[in-house]
Amino acid sequence: MLGARGGWQALRRCASLPREQRAVRLRVREALGAREPAGEVKVQGWVRSVRSQKEVLFLHINDGSSLEHLQVVADPSLENRDLTFGSAVEVQGKLVKSPHRMQNMELKAKTIRVVGPCDTWSFPLKMKERHPLEYVRQFPHLRCRNNTLGSLLRIRSEATAAIHSFFQDNGYLHIHTPIITSNDCEGAGELFQIETSGEARKSAEKTHFFNVPAFLTVSGQLHLEVMAGAFTHVFTFGPTFRAENSQSRRHLAEFYMVEAELSFTESLEDITQVMEDLFKTATNTVLSKCPRDVELFHKYIAPAQKDRLEQMLKKKFVIISYNEAVEILKQASQTFTFKPEWGCDLQTEHEKYLVKHCGEVPVFVINYPYDLKPFYMRDNDEDGPQHTVAAVDLLVPGIGELCGGSLREERLPCLESRLQRLGLVDAYQWYLDLRKFGSVPHGGFGMGFERYLQCILGVDNIKDVIPFPRFSHSCLL
Amino acid sequence: MLGARGGWQALRRCASLPREQRAVRLRVREALGAREPAGEVKVQGWVRSVRSQKEVLFLHINDGSSLEHLQVVADPSLENRDLTFGSAVEVQGKLVKSPHRMQNMELKAKTIRVVGPCDTWSFPLKMKERHPLEYVRQFPHLRCRNNTLGSLLRIRSEATAAIHSFFQDNGYLHIHTPIITSNDCEGAGELFQIETSGEARKSAEKTHFFNVPAFLTVSGQLHLEVMAGAFTHVFTFGPTFRAENSQSRRHLAEFYMVEAELSFTESLEDITQVMEDLFKTATNTVLSKCPRDVELFHKYIAPAQKDRLEQMLKKKFVIISYNEAVEILKQASQTFTFKPEWGCDLQTEHEKYLVKHCGEVPVFVINYPYDLKPFYMRDNDEDGPQHTVAAVDLLVPGIGELCGGSLREERLPCLESRLQRLGLVDAYQWYLDLRKFGSVPHGGFGMGFERYLQCILGVDNIKDVIPFPRFSHSCLL
Repeated sequence: MLGARGGWQALRRCASLPREQRAVRLRVREALGAREPAGEVKVQGWVRSVRSQKEVLFLHINDGSSLEHLQVVADPSLENRDLTFGSAVEVQGKLVKSPHRMQNMELKAKTIRVVGPCDTWSFPLKMKERHPLEYVRQFPHLRCRNNTLGSLLRIRSEATAAIHSFFQDNGYLHIHTPIITSNDCEGAGELFQIETSGEARKSAEKTHFFNVPAFLTVSGQLHLEVMAGAFTHVFTFGPTFRAENSQSRRHLAEFYMVEAELSFTESLEDITQVMEDLFKTATNTVLSKCPRDVELFHKYIAPAQKDRLEQMLKKKFVIISYNEAVEILKQASQTFTFKPEWGCDLQTEHEKYLVKHCGEVPVFVINYPYDLKPFYMRDNDEDGPQHTVAAVDLLVPGIGELCGGSLREERLPCLESRLQRLGLVDAYQWYLDLRKFGSVPHGGFGMGFERYLQCILGVDNIKDVIPFPRFSHSCLL
Repeated sequence: MLGARGGWQALRRCASLPREQRAVRLRVREALGAREPAGEVKVQGWVRSVRSQKEVLFLHINDGSSLEHLQVVADPSLENRDLTFGSAVEVQGKLVKSPHRMQNMELKAKTIRVVGPCDTWSFPLKMKERHPLEYVRQFPHLRCRNNTLGSLLRIRSEATAAIHSFFQDNGYLHIHTPIITSNDCEGAGELFQIETSGEARKSAEKTHFFNVPAFLTVSGQLHLEVMAGAFTHVFTFGPTFRAENSQSRRHLAEFYMVEAELSFTESLEDITQVMEDLFKTATNTVLSKCPRDVELFHKYIAPAQKDRLEQMLKKKFVIISYNEAVEILKQASQTFTFKPEWGCDLQTEHEKYLVKHCGEVPVFVINYPYDLKPFYMRDNDEDGPQHTVAAVDLLVPGIGELCGGSLREERLPCLESRLQRLGLVDAYQWYLDLRKFGSVPHGGFGMGFERYLQCILGVDNIKDVIPFPRFSHSCLL
């Protein structure tokens, strides 16, 4: 194994070794970033272009470590008929300064070995073609060999790491909340149910594998609340599920969610501050870690997104109350399909208007009507009982809702009476229990990870920011 | 939000501010680690002990940021009847040097506010009692307030981060492989099947939600192999599932798996080297990040594990072939329940013997019989066709199998004929496809994360290293 760090050390060692030494294995990213010519090196990867001239053979090879390809320069005698677009090669030679302005180093090949040929005729990706996202989506098992998807996957990997780092650096404990669960969290969406398959199913007839019906999680929130009774800062980042048969560009049956929970909160601003910090810190990290990959999206996929994102990172997010939001909408010159009215959910058209009204920056809308929101949200005392709850949604330009959160009802009597009215006391006995033993004001939020990636990159269809889109609304393979 | 870093900066600023300034919020870990007395601070947490003397009131409070509690010293007049074990408090006062040898700092309280009282009578955890793991396992929603589980969760969080860091530092791309999938990977275990629940189910009658039967993943390997056709180093770290109704201490229905895949491998040693490096690097990181938490396990839960682990970290792992393993077992003076024979799986008793025979260090067993292993494993040419495959299992003292891996069959004809014999060509057409377009030698491995935690900590029952153990074999809540 020769990773990012190992490679560099090896290269340094190699520079002072006699020529007979074995070639050092370098990754494309390492080769491109080398400061000065090195001894014998070996680079492995897939051919992205072949250009054969009378005097010289040019190859571009890529191994997934960067968007840029490494140029290989070789004697035409090294050409062979398996050396085609898509084939896998191992090139040995010398890393030298490139005469071209666009690249730093190139590889002067001594030997080229085709490790795996490519049946170019049936290979759905073609040399030098800029395939649209809709086209490559048809080939979930080959799509990652396309430049755009390569960049997406590097960005997704860096964004995942950046989110983990944000929480670690701020003293949050990472919790693996259960995927299989018997609670539906908020009754917000359709659930997937779990059964055993095949033989096991027959023998388990009529009895559930887990003794009770079991579902795929829609949120880790309630489990995080358990942990927030012992740890003041916790987070989770894992898959969540909705059995909504929506073919839209905005929903997936399986998607990733970042969720955090904080104890000893004093107000909703404890939560909105973390949401804003998370967004800005993680995004700045991604922009600094893979600038070329992000540039590809901002240049070719969504040209308006670069400026929009810069504005979001520069400006302070706006906070308005639901009351104010409704007033703004009522006074709008624009006519809406859904008439804005206190007590009704904000529709996409409303969200868009509010974001525009606030200057095209992210907007927190806080304190929603009590009856619109799930049982666990904290009743605001200020405006009378059961009128509004301390909920928050973060609306983002071009995307709509990116995050949702709330303070949770930590007061046993309030929670108990609400659950009684809903007939849910038995199901949530354990949740009520938490309020009996050192209960503290707490709150948290969730952020859809794919939605977040769309927000950075401006990708229109959510199916293009996941690694495996077999079916239109999920990711089977 | 006041995290690990923010707290320190705030503390430094505070030291030079006039007394009237607002108290700085500090976490227990930060307070305990302070070098010198500071101005007015505020610490929030849960009471772990109350000791009321005539002249002075002692409290221990904990907020989950460390195993150690912060000692609070107060005037007895600050006592009140809600100030009990398990209650949540906010203490304001001065951080001063402690006269006790066992701790660095203590908090001289000016005010103590009970934020959330605790019904100690019905609270299942009791002051100063060392509850056994079996006891606290009955209270999945309260168990995290116990010292041992607190330590476990901090270790689990650090181990997760350490594994991510290992792969990132070595240039691996992180991939979210699908949870819902239509492939069963290797037919190794019983699957959970997914259906929609409730209303959606009725309307979807007889047709599957995804048009084909869909299952919970048993491994992300095949998906990682897709990615290994464009990126030379990839990994995933997520939940996997087995519908095995086993009540054993060794299995879970839902567990976490670390999986990695490497392209351009030359031999199995490319894989075993990564397995060994991962184990040693991640473990050393965990030991240095939470020494006190690990110590708790090595002192009270599994006293033999400390030395055992030190040996594993110090010594080079041993590699033996399956052939050698069978010879060693045949020559053993010990009699086995299952007679060792070439072509049969190694049983737990065999694994134990082999590890002991090799000096109680981790042992890689490589090159297993062809017929014992799944279709994707690479046929070894050296010993004739269809005799052995390039598979590897890592056996670890006290645990048994910790990792499994193999080189994958990258040669289209070999793979195609094997799938044909198994009648699986149609199901794995996409997998065959990968071998037509720039196929390279590659391989990878998986490591059960809970098994790994057991390995560090010596915890006997796998249910005690997961955050939520509601049912004996899984983690519903």
